[in-house]
Amino acid sequence: MERRSFLTTAGAAGVAAAASSFPKPAISQGRMEWRMVTSWPKGLPGVGTGAQRIADRITAMSDGRLTVRLFAAGELVPALQVFDAVSDGTADMGHDASYYHTSKKEVIAFYTTFPWGLTAGELSGWIHYGGGQALWDELYAPFNLKGFAAGNTGTQMLGWFREEINSIDDIKGLKFRTPGNGGRVMTKLGATVVSLPGGEIFAALQSGAIDATEWIGPYNDLSFGFYQVAKYYYSPGYHEPASGLELVVNKEKYDALPSDLQTIVSAAAREANDAIYSEYVANSGPALRTLVSEHGVIIKKVPDDVLIAMGEAANEVLNEVRDQDDLSRRIVDSYLAYRADVVPWTRIGEQQFLNSRGLPFPHGANG
Amino acid sequence: MERRSFLTTAGAAGVAAAASSFPKPAISQGRMEWRMVTSWPKGLPGVGTGAQRIADRITAMSDGRLTVRLFAAGELVPALQVFDAVSDGTADMGHDASYYHTSKKEVIAFYTTFPWGLTAGELSGWIHYGGGQALWDELYAPFNLKGFAAGNTGTQMLGWFREEINSIDDIKGLKFRTPGNGGRVMTKLGATVVSLPGGEIFAALQSGAIDATEWIGPYNDLSFGFYQVAKYYYSPGYHEPASGLELVVNKEKYDALPSDLQTIVSAAAREANDAIYSEYVANSGPALRTLVSEHGVIIKKVPDDVLIAMGEAANEVLNEVRDQDDLSRRIVDSYLAYRADVVPWTRIGEQQFLNSRGLPFPHGANG
Repeated sequence: MERRSFLTTAGAAGVAAAASSFPKPAISQGRMEWRMVTSWPKGLPGVGTGAQRIADRITAMSDGRLTVRLFAAGELVPALQVFDAVSDGTADMGHDASYYHTSKKEVIAFYTTFPWGLTAGELSGWIHYGGGQALWDELYAPFNLKGFAAGNTGTQMLGWFREEINSIDDIKGLKFRTPGNGGRVMTKLGATVVSLPGGEIFAALQSGAIDATEWIGPYNDLSFGFYQVAKYYYSPGYHEPASGLELVVNKEKYDALPSDLQTIVSAAAREANDAIYSEYVANSGPALRTLVSEHGVIIKKVPDDVLIAMGEAANEVLNEVRDQDDLSRRIVDSYLAYRADVVPWTRIGEQQFLNSRGLPFPHGANG
Repeated sequence: MERRSFLTTAGAAGVAAAASSFPKPAISQGRMEWRMVTSWPKGLPGVGTGAQRIADRITAMSDGRLTVRLFAAGELVPALQVFDAVSDGTADMGHDASYYHTSKKEVIAFYTTFPWGLTAGELSGWIHYGGGQALWDELYAPFNLKGFAAGNTGTQMLGWFREEINSIDDIKGLKFRTPGNGGRVMTKLGATVVSLPGGEIFAALQSGAIDATEWIGPYNDLSFGFYQVAKYYYSPGYHEPASGLELVVNKEKYDALPSDLQTIVSAAAREANDAIYSEYVANSGPALRTLVSEHGVIIKKVPDDVLIAMGEAANEVLNEVRDQDDLSRRIVDSYLAYRADVVPWTRIGEQQFLNSRGLPFPHGANG
């Protein structure tokens, strides 16, 4: 995913007109209407429908006392401006990915994902039980924001490639659309990293302007049609092992809510963490099957020596982010300390089970 | 886990006295008090604190209009009787594991876990996006219950063993405390399966009455002290790849709630699915480290040929459950169809990432 990639519909002029035509939130008879902006096109399966679900659940739980109206990317503000719009009160809340806003401070990306970092369950564990939330509150308070973990797209795919990746030489000079810290890793490895909106990727891939592209995973990638141009679909998505989404709320407005509505907002975010993640888990399999069986997509794994080079480069990026200031250092160190604790458990727990599930059972294990 | 294993405190007499001394739920000025019974000892980290959290969140979100009072195992009814107590209205809701109630119908276990089945994210995906919830509603309606997925303890450990498991012969004759469908698998492989309450396991292991035991995982196992007697701690926990917890609500009472309170109850359950799971993820690593570095526990993996035999036996158990009646067949078939779709995605998505994270990075990936 990339921040610019969701700007597929409304242009800047349309956005400005829309922004001025919506009335300010109304408070009457103890009822409020809040505006939620998002970085997602209207109804985009997974992230877009997930944001709508959060709005609907807050409205339903509060019996309309806090009615949340959803605005897709470009309807009130462009996708890029969710963070600023909620911060300055143009909107009351937003559903977004924190790493679209690394221009504020690079360490913000850790609340979405980091190359070679944490899976979805591990990330939630760090935020809620590993000290992540307190540091997040410290990070966002100067922006007048309160952030909540609110969904995860799961492990992403590395992307779509015209040619096989057999060695690190195949990365050098590759024109690769891949954003954020994953893009920084690829730049270190010699790729020419390109930033393109989602709506322009297909044409760029078809014309040869780019050789390869990353998007999300089977559930969203299928409808973009990349398989028509690039047949090799590579994993692992080391660059986004699990992409956490955030609900950001204007802090001043959140603090002014009565405590029952505060709890309702936080619960809607937290249940979305389960709902959006499991939606991606459930729907990626059938999409993957369609890609392979109907469209001839070839699933490939990046060779280990190339992955190790990606690990080394990611480590450099991590240290560059960590060195920026004291708070960045404390957030990265908290994340790394937690990671060092959790990885050995994941390895003998869920990972050991997953690998054993792939053993050659004569009749399939429960198959 | 096992249903009997949580009956550690109150005896039957104490329970009967307690049950009669608590007043019926009161409804006054639009405020209700509901009673939530659980299968967990008071304050047991993870499941017990998770149940308390659900009660507290419903109370807070409803601003006390629906105040939920928690009763630990034995305080109102014994752990074994959560299902019946909520069904007949003795309690209004309960936090529990469905597989404690396979005497009602064996297929109920699938809403907790099944040998070689689904991980936590996969299970939530089946329930919410793979048809699982509709079948669950059909399964529970005759019992006047509504079930919600409400937490997961994650992948369990196979258990604690005095001796190594080097071949299937080491299973034969082994006196192993392991409950449920995992116990049925072990029985097929020649083990003598023993059922023991949690509070009796340690003494039985120490005296040699049993050779091995299963409990949950590092987070809860550490405090039971099994490491003092059995040094080998085996994975993978093929028998419980992820143990889902349930919030059961008396259906008649749930249906009578206004829709905002219904939504609040369902949201408290769903956020618990993230909260309890990520609590186990976050806390199991440090507990594992303590077991290994302070108590000399030796982590072992079951050999592949033994795991394959466990797969074959689990398949037999699955078919025995499936053959019981039409609804059992439909639930098992839904679970298997979903599993066949989701496993290929997990394999190239999260699992491929996890295995790559274990590569020998010269400086550690982000370490």
